[in-house]
This record gives sequence, structure tokens and C-alpha cells, in this order.
Amino acid sequence: MKDLKTPLLDRVTLPADLKGLSDRELHQLADELRAETISAVSVTGGHLGAGLGVVELTVAIHAVFDTPRDKLIWDVGHQCYPHKILTGRRDRIRTLRMEGGLSGFTKRSESPYDPFGAAHSSTSISAALGFAMAAELGGDPGDAIAVIGDGAMSAGMAFEAMNNAGHLGQRLFVILNDNEMSIAPPVGALSAYLSKLYAEPPMQDLKQVAKGFLGLLPPPLQEGAKRAKDMLKGLAIGGTLFEALGFSYVGPIDGHDLDTLLPVLRTVKARATGPMLIHVLTKKGKGYAPAEAARDKGHATGKFDVLTGVQAKAVSNAPSYTKVFAQSLVAEAERDEKIVAVTAAMPDGTGLNLFQDRFPKRCFDVGIAEQHAVTFSAALAAGGMKPFCAIYSTFLQRGYDQVVHDVAIQRLAVRFAVDRAGLVGADGATHAGAFDVAFLANLPGFVVMAAADEAELVHMVATAVAHDAGPIAFRFPRGDGVGVEMPARGVPLEIGKGRVLREGGRVAILSFGTRLAEVLKAAEALEARGVSVTVADARFAKPLDRDLILQLASQHEALITVEEGAIGGFGSHVAQLLADAGVFDRGLKYRSMVLPDIFIDQASPEAMYRVAGMEATQIETKVLDVLGVAVVGKRA
Amino acid sequence: MKDLKTPLLDRVTLPADLKGLSDRELHQLADELRAETISAVSVTGGHLGAGLGVVELTVAIHAVFDTPRDKLIWDVGHQCYPHKILTGRRDRIRTLRMEGGLSGFTKRSESPYDPFGAAHSSTSISAALGFAMAAELGGDPGDAIAVIGDGAMSAGMAFEAMNNAGHLGQRLFVILNDNEMSIAPPVGALSAYLSKLYAEPPMQDLKQVAKGFLGLLPPPLQEGAKRAKDMLKGLAIGGTLFEALGFSYVGPIDGHDLDTLLPVLRTVKARATGPMLIHVLTKKGKGYAPAEAARDKGHATGKFDVLTGVQAKAVSNAPSYTKVFAQSLVAEAERDEKIVAVTAAMPDGTGLNLFQDRFPKRCFDVGIAEQHAVTFSAALAAGGMKPFCAIYSTFLQRGYDQVVHDVAIQRLAVRFAVDRAGLVGADGATHAGAFDVAFLANLPGFVVMAAADEAELVHMVATAVAHDAGPIAFRFPRGDGVGVEMPARGVPLEIGKGRVLREGGRVAILSFGTRLAEVLKAAEALEARGVSVTVADARFAKPLDRDLILQLASQHEALITVEEGAIGGFGSHVAQLLADAGVFDRGLKYRSMVLPDIFIDQASPEAMYRVAGMEATQIETKVLDVLGVAVVGKRA
Repeated sequence: MKDLKTPLLDRVTLPADLKGLSDRELHQLADELRAETISAVSVTGGHLGAGLGVVELTVAIHAVFDTPRDKLIWDVGHQCYPHKILTGRRDRIRTLRMEGGLSGFTKRSESPYDPFGAAHSSTSISAALGFAMAAELGGDPGDAIAVIGDGAMSAGMAFEAMNNAGHLGQRLFVILNDNEMSIAPPVGALSAYLSKLYAEPPMQDLKQVAKGFLGLLPPPLQEGAKRAKDMLKGLAIGGTLFEALGFSYVGPIDGHDLDTLLPVLRTVKARATGPMLIHVLTKKGKGYAPAEAARDKGHATGKFDVLTGVQAKAVSNAPSYTKVFAQSLVAEAERDEKIVAVTAAMPDGTGLNLFQDRFPKRCFDVGIAEQHAVTFSAALAAGGMKPFCAIYSTFLQRGYDQVVHDVAIQRLAVRFAVDRAGLVGADGATHAGAFDVAFLANLPGFVVMAAADEAELVHMVATAVAHDAGPIAFRFPRGDGVGVEMPARGVPLEIGKGRVLREGGRVAILSFGTRLAEVLKAAEALEARGVSVTVADARFAKPLDRDLILQLASQHEALITVEEGAIGGFGSHVAQLLADAGVFDRGLKYRSMVLPDIFIDQASPEAMYRVAGMEATQIETKVLDVLGVAVVGKRA
Repeated sequence: MKDLKTPLLDRVTLPADLKGLSDRELHQLADELRAETISAVSVTGGHLGAGLGVVELTVAIHAVFDTPRDKLIWDVGHQCYPHKILTGRRDRIRTLRMEGGLSGFTKRSESPYDPFGAAHSSTSISAALGFAMAAELGGDPGDAIAVIGDGAMSAGMAFEAMNNAGHLGQRLFVILNDNEMSIAPPVGALSAYLSKLYAEPPMQDLKQVAKGFLGLLPPPLQEGAKRAKDMLKGLAIGGTLFEALGFSYVGPIDGHDLDTLLPVLRTVKARATGPMLIHVLTKKGKGYAPAEAARDKGHATGKFDVLTGVQAKAVSNAPSYTKVFAQSLVAEAERDEKIVAVTAAMPDGTGLNLFQDRFPKRCFDVGIAEQHAVTFSAALAAGGMKPFCAIYSTFLQRGYDQVVHDVAIQRLAVRFAVDRAGLVGADGATHAGAFDVAFLANLPGFVVMAAADEAELVHMVATAVAHDAGPIAFRFPRGDGVGVEMPARGVPLEIGKGRVLREGGRVAILSFGTRLAEVLKAAEALEARGVSVTVADARFAKPLDRDLILQLASQHEALITVEEGAIGGFGSHVAQLLADAGVFDRGLKYRSMVLPDIFIDQASPEAMYRVAGMEATQIETKVLDVLGVAVVGKRA
């Protein structure tokens, strides 16, 4: 791909440059944009399929609308690489998802062409409506356009926004990018409904079309009669669901056909007076065979060879935490038929595809619907099952009220597998799992665990199976384990008991979660300096191991907690215990190492830990500081 | 109402007793149940209108279905008083919402007839689906029936559950209780759609009905031809929205007509194979003129006189916090046209009805849709407005991911008015606002305030208007202020600065929020015992007033924080600051008084504060304990 020729794209710096191009030139531009996107992602890795699916749509929207005055909002934002290339960021496109480079999602701070950042799904219609109403009330002028996938449309939030937009009746464009594939294969009745919409032969009943969208068309279409005819071919009757919510519906139309996209967008831009839904059919990975063929259509890919599509993947000797969780759960489920699993559109990401393959009837993919996932799990528990609700830490925020109201208050034994807890690398701040310990551990009756390594995770899955008295959560990070020996099977841990890994005299470090490996390294380095260190793994943020903590406090000059989470979590609970027990009355060098009070941008995990101050050398330095030990010949 | 005669109801202890009654007797039972409900609520106060609207539905469901084997789930649960009367709780119905009495909502721990508790809206379909799938997989057997109001149907969570239920295809009953009035008058396109459904003349097209529901009817209906005819009169074509989601639709039918309700329910029970939506029209407050006439149809009422409907309301000299917030916001909005307000179906509860009356175009009631409300507010801010998003603390949990992802990460200046923060009295644990400080104050860039009294609230509204740099939240409790003198207008506070109210020497109490009055009382009592007390009002949980806190720590033997919130909030942030600053190294009697680690059941606010240990005498005792002062002649 060194010989990539993009003569037209080379002339485009900003969307304004598209205004001078003919429709024929826009076709060529789209081809060049596709090639450039593939080339860039082969270097950076990232969400390839989604971007390739919207190449023509990206060109058409920027050609027709007046961005950035008009607010274009990409739902999730993972399909925005072509958009970034067209909006002044081509020179940095090969820094995608890297430290100091472009975000893998849209981001306000990055460009005025990203009026509203995203990364979590289904926010775009709410955002577009907000811009539309602000414009109406004297705020920033311009149209608002949301582009949202069919999967994202299954989230309740999108429905809430449609319901409100239909009620307000403000001019607004929602482009439903229907690719039958959000992250995983689509689930849910809405998806079946959409399929029916485009399975029906278009134009069965011209009268009905006339009642619906046709009234908006200029007769004859300015683009000429031929194009009008082509366009009408793409219009099917239907869309009643959206019309019920107060939207005008047009579609479905071929999202890879600029000869349809351009006139339709020009027409709706010229004529729409209220909220309008434009139903566009696209193909994820379009135009790049390896991406089109992938099971998840190249949702997220590593770096790859453009010609073969073969990914360069780092070799690891340890299994990923996700896989360990999934395998452990399958093993437990072999022995206990009450175990069921729930995922919100992430069977692959959570590893539950393994469970689904083995126990298809006991696995529920509820779609992008975390709220429902949590309460559905709560009722499964109330109905006598043992539900494991597997949701990334950051997405569990979507179901927080349900965790409080339906699970915790009712003390129902839902088992939460909280994946991607802590820092996550290339996905950046929006995907960081920083807040789960804080927002779970203060709920009465909750048990909250963190696995220190992959063997611990196996035991925590077993612990969760055995714990019927109320809700329980176990968190674990993204990425591979540390390579410890794996147990033959999980053994339930004693609730609220930690473990001591290393006994020392002067300072105690109490770790919660996978920073344990760094803590042990720091302890060795400290020992080499003559500072004797005890290291313990708390295992539980709730209930705390009171005896262990008070003993560590009484037998050491200093006690330092380490966790990969924000303030308000494990360390705060330890501090409360120490204060209540009067430990601070007589003095204790106590520190709580938590994630810093900033949103950390994407980088390598190592770089992020450095920013967070959670590397072994930084833990070592912290201990030395606390002890007031003069640091001579400090390590780099 | 002393002469209330309920001969039939007197024979009913449990729903099984309904099985022996004729349909004619069920009519009479419904009348008696209505009278008993009115009589009970006149004594206890509570949600009268909702219960009166479902009297016939309650009788019909219990007569037809086999509760508690069949799982009946009332959405929100505020309409469950007649249900409680019929399910073995009549003898305690006059203890509704009182300490030690019946909950005002459904509650698992209260009765097997409450298989899934509620209080927040829109959880019932998820719950019913969970029970249905559990039954399918060998868990508790029985049918699952959700009764959900039209307002609750506008929440995204209900849509998520419908989408999943339609996909799974499991037998399931969703009764849409359409009363055109959830809490406030209905908003949203869905509501308009439902109105259209029942505005259309029924039976326009028998063929279409046959395609839909009619196939389920036994020909001829077992209830006889006459009834079949009556019933069919009540069936309209339509419901496409629900059919698009995979549900069979029947309705709309008159929810106060047992001659329709009973055969329809019998038929669907006999014949349904998949998810079924039964659209029922009811009238809130039905059968009690004062409730029918109320603006919010008697959503929640105080105790009242049955004959006149006049409520006995406690007289207060101070305005409610809610009203102070609303009036302050209106005053600010008179001066600043960028101010807009957003509520999620709570214009009355949040006081924003005042704002709506004055600035109808600048006020958005988005329906029961907290997720959308938050992101919509974020985009309003991005579009140049100053949005005040007014949501109760407990309901803000519904929009938590949006607070993190759309507001905090983007540093958008959304102003959160967090009403009902802290303990709330009769509404109990589900409505307590215990977690907001913890889940907001650990978000980078957030400013988090709590008003110590109603005058402070006025200034905090002004502070929020002036703060454009990022998100800001101010919390305030349910109920009336303390009666302080009110400022002519709000003056922005300095961000991150507290205030000292009383200077003393030995112990410092640092209050965050409205417990300040109790703290001052405690300080006086302590002073009388010879313990010299400094009292400060932190005003901000974030950013903390570092100078003030370190000064209090260094100049006193003990420092005690007091807040009406769970662990992880203000006190945890103070502890982190003290630890980092090395204050604990040299010893400090530090304590953090937070809400206890239990869900506190409904009671009077006073009783709840006693349980929470937050009364003046309890604060006093805490201080004495911490100081190790022997308590002689301790107060009661």
C-alpha cells in the first residue's frame, strides 16, 4: 500500500473542499477514502469494519450538509475514521488510538467537526436533539444530524430520545445506519422488525409512500427525473414504528450508493420541517474482503497486513482474564444447572460466546440494554436461578440504578462479572473502569471482590456461584493474566477474608486487584534498600477483612492501600474502618493510592499506569516518601 | 366512613378466596375494595389516584390468574394498595408508609404476593421476563404478568425489555395501564401514539383484527356470545408499535369494566403462546371525585377528609427546598436567557412547573427518561445554553453513565439540581438519596455542593449559573427549610471554599449539607459540657477547601465530618486529603459520620435520622466518645 494513489483526497483538507466536487468526483473520493482508511488501520489497528461501512455516507453528509456549523454526531464514534480523514485530521490518522494521537472515537477537544464526543452507544439522538433545541433558543445555529447503528437503536436511551424528539417536533435528522451487526450479531425484536422493513418489496403501494415521505419531494426533483426514479426505487413503505414516535420515515436506501444518498440527503435537507429518520442499509467492512468476512465484521482489529488481512498479534503466555472468567463459568455451569449468563450485546467481549456455545438456552444476549440486563438478572435470581451478569465496568454505569434498586435493595443474588476494570489502553478514558468499586461497595449487602491474578479469578467465579445470600461482584482487568499456575477447579473463598503474601516489619502494602504484581516488585526493591515490607491481597473491598487490616495497621509504621480505581472505593472503606477503630488517633502513616483525579487519554497500558502512578517504581517511591527515607540513587 | 360496609371484602383474605365468587360478586367486591382503599389512604396519605385506577384490574388479575404462583409485578408499585388489601395485608393497610408498617410500594420481604419489589419506574417488564425465563429453565414455575403505566412505558428500560421479550418469544403478559397520566401530564410521542390508538373507531377492519388477536379467541367464547360481542367492541385495530416489537396486541379495552376485563384475561391466559400486550384504559382516581379532579390525579396525597377531600397538611413557616430552588432558578432565568431547565417527568416534584409556567419554551419535560435527560442537557450546554437538569438523587442513578460519559468526560457545564438528597421519610429506602455524593464527587472536573439551609441554596443556584467551566451539582433535601432569613438574590459562592460558623478550641465538626442545624445544636450542648467546638460548613465536597480542612485538623484535637450520604462521599474525600497531607502520621482523632450501611425502611424523617445516628444528641455523643470524655448524666 505504499503506492496508494489518492489524487482527489489529496485536494481535500476540510469538508468545504467537497462543495466544489461533482457527484462523479465524489464517487472517486469515496474510493480513495476507503483505501486510505484501510491503509491507516493496518498500521494502527482499531475499528475497521464500522468505518468502511460508512465511507459513502461520510462523503455524502459532508458534501450535502454544512459541517461544522451543522452538527454531525456519530453514535459510538467508532465509525469515524473516514470522517476524521475528511475533517482536517488526515495527517494524524496513523496515530489513531496511540498516546498523544487521535482518539479512536469522536472527541470534542480534538476538532470542531466533533461537536459531541462518543464511545458508549446510543447517545447521538439525545445529543442531536439538544443541539437542535439550543439552536432554536438562540444557541449555536445549524442543523443536527445523528448517525446511529441498528444495534445502538436497541438501547433504551435511543428510544427515550426518539420519544422526546417526536414530541418536540423540531427539525432533526436521524440516519439509521442499518448493517445488521452492531458489535455482535443483532438480537432483539427491533432488529427483526428492521429486517422485515427491507425484506418487503419496495414501492408496493405508491399511495402510502405519497402519504409519507413523498410529500417532501420537490416535483420534479431538482436532481432530474432519472435520479428521482432511482431514488424512489430505494424507498419502501413502512417505518411505522418510527412514524408512531413522530418521525417522518424514508428508506430503506442503499448506503453505498452515492447516487441515492446524495439526492435523498439534499431533499430532506431542503424540505424537512420536523424530525426525520433516514433508514440506510450498509455493510460493515464494505470493500475490504477480510473485514467483510470476519464474524464480527472487523469490529475492532489489531494491526494487519493490507493484502492478506492477517493480524499481527502479540504472543502471550498467559490467557486473558476474559477467557479465564468464561472458561471458569462454563466449568461451574457443567456442575450447576441453575447457572445462567446475561450479556448486553457483548458475547465476544465478555467471553460469554464460550458459554453460549455450550449452553445456548442458558445464555441471554439482551442487546445493548444494560438497564434491562441488570433487572432481568435480578428477576432470574428471584425466580431461582444463579445469574451471572457480565458487563464491562464502564458499561455497568448504564445499569447503576437497576443495581441499586432491583438488586441491592432486594438483596438478590446476582453475580456481576465486571470486566475491563481499571485502565484499558487504546480505548481511552471513555472505556476506563474507574468507578465501579466506589459505586458498588457503598451499597448495603453487596460483596465486592477484585482478582489479583487469573488463578484468583477462577476462585472468585466459584465464590460467586456459592454465594446465595445477596449480590456479589468481582472485577478483573482487560488483557492477559500474569502467567500464574492455574488451579484444576475453583474453590470458594471465605467471604471478607484477605491473604498475606509476604511478611515484613516496617511497612504494609495492602493491594486490591491486579496491581498486586507491581506491589510485589516494589516490595522486593524496598527490601533491597533495607525496608522490610508486608504485602497482603485484600481480595474483598466489601466486606473488609477487619482483623487483617487492624493487624497490619498495628504492626507497621505505615499502611498503604493500592487499587486500580477512583477515590471512594477500597481505600476509602479502609480509611473509614481505621478512623472508626481509632487507629488514626494514635497516628499511622496511612496512604491510599488510587487512580488520579483526571480522565486519562488513550495510550499503552504501561504509559497509562505511569500517568496513574501505579508502576512498581512509583509504588516504591511512594513508600519511601511516606517513611521519610532519603532516596539516594533512586531508580529511574 | 366509620360505617363502611364491606361484606364481601370481609370474606376475602387471600386471592384464592376470589375463585369462588361469581362475576357479579366480583363487581361488588371491586366497589368495596375502592371504598376501603379511599378510607385507608384518608388515614395514611399516599398514592391514592393510582390505586383507584386499578381497582377492577386488581380484582380481575387475581380472579383469573393464580397468584402468587403466577408472578404479578406492578410497575412502580404505587398503585398496589388494593392489591395489598386483597393479598392478606388488609389488617395492616392503615399502617401504609408508616414506620414498621406496610411499604407504600410492593416489597418482596413483605409478602409472597410481591414477587418483585418496585418504586422506581419501568422495571416490571424486565422483571416479568426474568421470571418467565426462570420458569422455562426449571426455576419457579408460573406465569409472569407486568402491569405498567403509559408514562412508565416511555422509559428506555421498558423498551429494552420489550425488545428482548419480543425476541425471546416466551409467554408473558404485559398489561399497559394507560391512564394518560403517569405523575405529570404525559409527554412524548409514544403518548400521542397511544391516544391515536384509542381515538380510532374500534373494529374498522375485522380482517385486520382477525390477523392479530382474534385468532386467539375461542369461537364461540366460553363466556357466551353476548360477552364476546361486548369484548370485541372494546378491541381496536392497531398496536403496530408493539407488534413491531414482537408482541401480540389486544386492546384498547375499558379497564373499569369487569365484563370486558375478565373474559379478555381468561382468554389470553388460556391461549397466549408468546409475549402479549393488553392495552387497558383506566382513569386515575376513578370513583373518588376529589382524586379525579386533582391536577396530578392524586399522585401522592397527604391524609384527608373522605367526604370533602380536603387534606390535612402540616403548617410550616419555611418554604420547601424544592420551592426555593425553583424560585431562585426563575429569578436567575429572568436575568439570563441562556438558562433552560430539564426534568424527567417531574415538573411538580422538582418545582420546575414554576419555571415552565414562566418560560414554557425554555423548559423541557422529557418524560421518564433520565438517561436522555442528562445527555440532552449535555448537548444543550455544548450548544451554548445553561441547562439546569433537575433530578432527584435516587433517579439520577438512572442517568449515571450519561453523567460520566457525556457530561464529565466532556467537561460540559450541565447544572445538576439534585433534589431529595438524603433520607426521605415515608417513601423509604428506594427513594433515599444516599449515593449521589459518592458517585459524583469522584468524577474529574465535577463541582459538588450541598446546601446547608435554604438561603445557601439560593446562593448555590447563583453559583451554578456563574460556573461555566464544567459540570456542577448541588444537592438539597426533601422537605422544608429551617426558616433562615432569605437573601434578596443569590450571590455566587467562591468555588471550593467553606465557611466557619462557630469558633472553638477542642473539636471541629465539619458539616456538608443540611445536618448543619443538628451540628450547631450538638455544639451548643457540648459547649454546655465544657467542650469547645468549632463548626464549619464545607459547602463543597469537590473541590475541597484544603486550607480550611488542614487548619481545622491542625488546630483541634478531633475533626468530625457529618454528611447525609453513604460512605465514599464527602468524608472519604476529606480522609484522602488528610492522609495525603500526612495529618494522620502524627495522629488526629478523625471520624466520618455517614449514613449507615443499611437500607433504611420508611419512617418519619426524625425516626430515620435517629436510625442513621444523625440527630444532635447522637452527634454530641459521638464527639464525647471520640474525645474519651466520660458521659455522666447523658441525655436521652
